Amino acid sequence: MLEEISGGVCAPLGFKAAAMQVNIRKPKKDMAIIASDVAAAVAGVFTRNKAAAAPIQVCQQHLQKSSVARAVVVNSGNANACTGEQGRRDATAMARETAKCLGVPEEQVWVSSTGVIGQHLPMEKILSAIPDLSKTLTNTGSSDAAAAIMTTDTFPKELAVKLSLGGKDVRIGAIAKGSGMIAPNMATMLGFVTTDANIPPPLLQKTLSRANAVSFNRISVDGDCSTNDMVMMMANGLAENDPMADGSESYLHFYAALEYVLIKLAKTIVKDGEGATKLIEIHINGARTENDAVQAARAIANSPLVKTAFHASDANWGRIMAAIGYSGIEVVPENVEISFGDVPILKKNFDIMLDERKAKEVLLKSEFEVNVNLNQGEASATFWTCDLSAKYVEINGSYRT
Amino acid sequence: MLEEISGGVCAPLGFKAAAMQVNIRKPKKDMAIIASDVAAAVAGVFTRNKAAAAPIQVCQQHLQKSSVARAVVVNSGNANACTGEQGRRDATAMARETAKCLGVPEEQVWVSSTGVIGQHLPMEKILSAIPDLSKTLTNTGSSDAAAAIMTTDTFPKELAVKLSLGGKDVRIGAIAKGSGMIAPNMATMLGFVTTDANIPPPLLQKTLSRANAVSFNRISVDGDCSTNDMVMMMANGLAENDPMADGSESYLHFYAALEYVLIKLAKTIVKDGEGATKLIEIHINGARTENDAVQAARAIANSPLVKTAFHASDANWGRIMAAIGYSGIEVVPENVEISFGDVPILKKNFDIMLDERKAKEVLLKSEFEVNVNLNQGEASATFWTCDLSAKYVEINGSYRT
Repeated sequence: MLEEISGGVCAPLGFKAAAMQVNIRKPKKDMAIIASDVAAAVAGVFTRNKAAAAPIQVCQQHLQKSSVARAVVVNSGNANACTGEQGRRDATAMARETAKCLGVPEEQVWVSSTGVIGQHLPMEKILSAIPDLSKTLTNTGSSDAAAAIMTTDTFPKELAVKLSLGGKDVRIGAIAKGSGMIAPNMATMLGFVTTDANIPPPLLQKTLSRANAVSFNRISVDGDCSTNDMVMMMANGLAENDPMADGSESYLHFYAALEYVLIKLAKTIVKDGEGATKLIEIHINGARTENDAVQAARAIANSPLVKTAFHASDANWGRIMAAIGYSGIEVVPENVEISFGDVPILKKNFDIMLDERKAKEVLLKSEFEVNVNLNQGEASATFWTCDLSAKYVEINGSYRT
Repeated sequence: MLEEISGGVCAPLGFKAAAMQVNIRKPKKDMAIIASDVAAAVAGVFTRNKAAAAPIQVCQQHLQKSSVARAVVVNSGNANACTGEQGRRDATAMARETAKCLGVPEEQVWVSSTGVIGQHLPMEKILSAIPDLSKTLTNTGSSDAAAAIMTTDTFPKELAVKLSLGGKDVRIGAIAKGSGMIAPNMATMLGFVTTDANIPPPLLQKTLSRANAVSFNRISVDGDCSTNDMVMMMANGLAENDPMADGSESYLHFYAALEYVLIKLAKTIVKDGEGATKLIEIHINGARTENDAVQAARAIANSPLVKTAFHASDANWGRIMAAIGYSGIEVVPENVEISFGDVPILKKNFDIMLDERKAKEVLLKSEFEVNVNLNQGEASATFWTCDLSAKYVEINGSYRT
């Protein structure tokens, strides 16, 4: 029933995008606008970092003032974070200029930035680009927008799906960017999601928060914590499906499609982690609560020692056990079982099954699963991470210069 | 008044040490015993990892049974962690054999292991070495013992000081080992401290805990969390100083000497962090509480993005601000001030002072200070960390193989 289609954020009816090269920090496409032809229900999830960037603060204000939005203006190369009052004025000016060019209310335009922290935006360049961007909005602009929001990403991240809700075709499109991967608390993750589904703003917010919790919040780029992380979703209703009620069959169908899109993009972000060569899917089973499962998975996913071992295809399961041990959850180490793919590594009571050759076969793959059974409950969680390579160090030592 | 002397853990009266090569994992000195001629008051601080290794569990049992100790037996190359019942039997057997050879009660011998997790100790090798070790104890054995406890350390860590308490010379000696540095939660840190001071066991424990909290617990090898971390201190009273009371002048003098020794060793561990090329001292001032200061410092010290920037001598202060922002403390970003050494980088209200050339001059040094003023209280803390280099990845990808 769910079909992948082309077109990214412009696949849903009534959405257009445009991008251009403004040379904010490097000679590349670095500004974009995504806009809906009509007012769209809007929802957002934002970083919880205490030093949240100016654009985050402006989006949160606009969301308080208005449950609908018409557009978002984005730049890469400069995060407009740690820029104080001037930063807030700059972010507001970006939204205001875009609103003026599109002829819509200011609070219906969101603004997003990613890049270096602690530098003021080159506002002259940015403001003079907005009229041109507004004029070139097109329903084939998604890929350009996906490219424009990239920083150290090595490829654009874009996806769209089509589903049927009560006889009406509904589309969901999305673009995203990732960044430094082993630094779960500081990498900037941006996601922009569009849909022509008809869904009221409060349910849209609930839906985005739910799907975000099991996708972008389950990768080693942690949406909780960078200064600039955000995911924005606009739903303009042009598909004219009957309104969805929470928990209804059509809602669950829609939710599943959104979760599919966000998980697939989230995994793409991990794959493109700085210096990453492997995508690792961590399954925790047998936890007392889902929170416990996530906490254990996150500890494994964030451990530099685990990640360097994965990089070297070294079946150093003791590092996984130690990570679970310090994750903060209650755990009986004797109960823990570990397998790599379907190769058992450790059974209960530290019964070590490790066959180095078979284990290495799994770890040499570019994608593999790590399965952990805590054997103390019924809850589970899935989490995605990548390996840690010397290239990560190289990229992050030279990023700013 | 405080004088550095030679002799390490054998500098205090009545302490001897011995080491030998048992080839547990590599052809190097890998076993040691440190012993006191007479029963010594004993204190310990241990990892809080839920998967605490067998030797940790045995030491905790011995400490419960006896407030004095005579010796500790240590091996490197194998952590005896995640080894279950068999592991506890092996650790106990090490203590028992050492106790037998020294003619002392079993519970007065502690045992400590460091190395690979999840493998059983080669007990035949280990047990047959203990009689020889016991026979070769000498008051010049400290350096050999310091070498025997090394794993990925590149140099042994040893220190001793002499002070005068009420007319009596008192000595404190110590050896330590560190390990992976950016993995604060999994590196094994071992410290063995001896003194001929006369101090009752409860006060010794309090004193060790206090000094440990501002030394080994303030570096990026976090004593809270590896499976094997421990610091053991023995005080045999042979200096015959008058008993010390908590808070007395002589106690404060003794405490200051111990803190000096532990901080100096802790800094040495950071300097020798895997792949480390720089020692960075982080000062947080103006925090509401000392806990807040430590939490902010720890976030900065553990951030891979901050550490890679330091490695590249890149004055990327925004990453420091972001780390403070996600550290979990309440903070007003506008109030934060940052300097590298005495070069101001950021003043209140994001007033950026950054002079790239001057900042780089500081960051190019092999040791420098990062000063952060949160400007919201009177509390402060100091923390030590190192940079993150590509060599760290290399070391940890190949450690086990």
